[in-house]
Amino acid sequence: MTESLTVLRRRQLLAGGAGLLAGAGLVCRVGDAAAQASAPAATVPRPLPAYVAWKDPNAVIVHSATTIETRRSAFGTSGITPAEQLYIRNNLPAPDAAIVADRDAWQVVFEGVRNPRTISVGELKTMGVETVATVLQCSGNGRGFFPSKPAGTPWTVGAAGCVVWSGVPLRYVVEALGGLTPGMLYLTGTGGEKLPDGVDPLSVLVERSVAVGALNDALLAWEMNGAALPLAHGGPLRLIVPGYQGVNNIKYVKRVAFTAAESQAKIMTHGYRITPLGGTSNPDEPSVQEMGVKSWVNSPNADRSVKAGIVQVTGVAFSSGAPIRRVEVSSNGGRDWSDASFIGPDLGRFAWRQFALPMRMAAGNYVMVSRATDAAGNVQPEQRLENLHGYNNTSWADPAVKVVVV
Amino acid sequence: MTESLTVLRRRQLLAGGAGLLAGAGLVCRVGDAAAQASAPAATVPRPLPAYVAWKDPNAVIVHSATTIETRRSAFGTSGITPAEQLYIRNNLPAPDAAIVADRDAWQVVFEGVRNPRTISVGELKTMGVETVATVLQCSGNGRGFFPSKPAGTPWTVGAAGCVVWSGVPLRYVVEALGGLTPGMLYLTGTGGEKLPDGVDPLSVLVERSVAVGALNDALLAWEMNGAALPLAHGGPLRLIVPGYQGVNNIKYVKRVAFTAAESQAKIMTHGYRITPLGGTSNPDEPSVQEMGVKSWVNSPNADRSVKAGIVQVTGVAFSSGAPIRRVEVSSNGGRDWSDASFIGPDLGRFAWRQFALPMRMAAGNYVMVSRATDAAGNVQPEQRLENLHGYNNTSWADPAVKVVVV
Repeated sequence: MTESLTVLRRRQLLAGGAGLLAGAGLVCRVGDAAAQASAPAATVPRPLPAYVAWKDPNAVIVHSATTIETRRSAFGTSGITPAEQLYIRNNLPAPDAAIVADRDAWQVVFEGVRNPRTISVGELKTMGVETVATVLQCSGNGRGFFPSKPAGTPWTVGAAGCVVWSGVPLRYVVEALGGLTPGMLYLTGTGGEKLPDGVDPLSVLVERSVAVGALNDALLAWEMNGAALPLAHGGPLRLIVPGYQGVNNIKYVKRVAFTAAESQAKIMTHGYRITPLGGTSNPDEPSVQEMGVKSWVNSPNADRSVKAGIVQVTGVAFSSGAPIRRVEVSSNGGRDWSDASFIGPDLGRFAWRQFALPMRMAAGNYVMVSRATDAAGNVQPEQRLENLHGYNNTSWADPAVKVVVV
Repeated sequence: MTESLTVLRRRQLLAGGAGLLAGAGLVCRVGDAAAQASAPAATVPRPLPAYVAWKDPNAVIVHSATTIETRRSAFGTSGITPAEQLYIRNNLPAPDAAIVADRDAWQVVFEGVRNPRTISVGELKTMGVETVATVLQCSGNGRGFFPSKPAGTPWTVGAAGCVVWSGVPLRYVVEALGGLTPGMLYLTGTGGEKLPDGVDPLSVLVERSVAVGALNDALLAWEMNGAALPLAHGGPLRLIVPGYQGVNNIKYVKRVAFTAAESQAKIMTHGYRITPLGGTSNPDEPSVQEMGVKSWVNSPNADRSVKAGIVQVTGVAFSSGAPIRRVEVSSNGGRDWSDASFIGPDLGRFAWRQFALPMRMAAGNYVMVSRATDAAGNVQPEQRLENLHGYNNTSWADPAVKVVVV
């Protein structure tokens, strides 16, 4: 058994973790759409898909082959989310594992610079190296709390993690290519997924645009949490846009373009838009971009019994890049608040902070919530902003944990 | 195949990763002694032992079932060492996995305090939580460079990693127990390994003493890099003594005692002593305790070809707790030096810093070394201090990397 496990694991590593995915017949979809919506969160445990068989099955909820959530009870207090626990939200199935067989050979087209050209990962590795910790969060995280029950995966808090990325700052590459072409307003990244046959490519292409200013913090990452970036999380190369919702962090990035207009891919024009209830998504609506100030309690949680006495209340807090200055905790749903302390190293303004507060709790019922404030004075709101697809939920009330202390 | 892998992994997780080890008949030994010394570093690849079958076989060198080294080429630039890559050095085989079946039930005896008693992990979790990143390093790391070829595993640089631990600060527990008994000079931790039958327990017991002042930074950790502490690395609970050599960080800790004298276990009295060449180890010699200032280059390395042009030279630097202020890099074995920059978040004074320096390298032969200086002005020395067992090697010259640029 050990030997077969070792062989399997080695094969997966060589194959970038997706060797068994080919031909799995996954449905190709764009957006957080309907196919998975009918799947209850964790009532019927599903096995891990082959391309992420290396994940910890006890730490995640498998909504579908392309949507996997971290269990709230799996989040620790270390500040980083290990790869085995990190959520998955893929708009298309991961490409063939052949693309990570020779990671340095992966090619990226750079456009919208004075000297556009194609650069391999091997060459990018000579152009500089930096390491940054960021919160990676699906813009649909918290969708499961919307009373309107939007279509899409009903994530609660686990479509997020804090990850350490290492790679080359995009600005170094732009400098090497002579700087930006004048007039370019957007940083547009294109994913290297294999597109399904017989459909308009723009209807499925994973391509997103963010404001060009995001260039200052962006990273082209080949490493995640100290290991080669797994295929399932975008290896061999991922465009990391710190402070921005997950969809803007393009996996298997094959093109980085500075453009005068936003991408015309449907995932940009109509997907991930903040659409009013009853409306129809369109390009005039706001797109999901920077993340709002947000926090939640991870422990105590519903998965473990709580004994009367001192309870260490812990959780995470983050913003789009302003340092978190304060986290308050309430055990009665927001009526009374106490300031929590930060624990562990500060991994930087794009990471989340772990907070902790010891509370003396007698037997009874409690409703645990937390509320974060960033250095710019932005306070996490009580209420989510209702929208058709359930994006950008930063409510402090929604992720409340009902705890019974005995 | 996927299903069997998933089942295996689940079983391992439930079993804490050591379910298959029982009865494997591993030789029980104390100290970095002779049995493995004849094993060449990586000439004959060995499979991973069952209790660490979840490690990345491509990232490690298996010296023996209880001594596994991280490959130099596996070290990334993220500041943290993932569990899958982290070295293993066990003085006894890991205990039965039953001890992590109910982690909160593990009991620890506290002595040398005003109100001594036994406390479960579950209760420790109510007493406080903190997170600290530390360099975990076997005191024999670098033994492979000693020309005297000491007995013991011939580690080069990979018996070290930087790990994020989360648990309760030991000083909180001591406070809760009424403070220290007067006159106690040592913090003594005892491991929970099963001792072999038919031998004097003190000859094999894993028990170490450090100066009582280490209490201020010590942690009783139940979490490593964001996940429950694996059995192989000391779960359910490990005594972390930041700044001290690995052996002092007691796995499966079952007793924490403040004592007037050092432990009488052989691993303390005679093991891990700095013994002159030709001498005999004895309790009057210095024991391996705090780590010296140290650094080394991880990339470029011998595992990958290097192309002429700009090369990003990267590596790690650390001390026993004073921040690293400077790292110099030389490509000609120490004749000329250039200052490197730090990259990534500062994980704290007990963590290592990642450094990077872009160097223009023409075709030719190079000898890459690095030299660290800490905030107290301590400079990493050129030469190791010769000693019988090959401990505490902090030489900057020894881990030199010979690079051929083409």
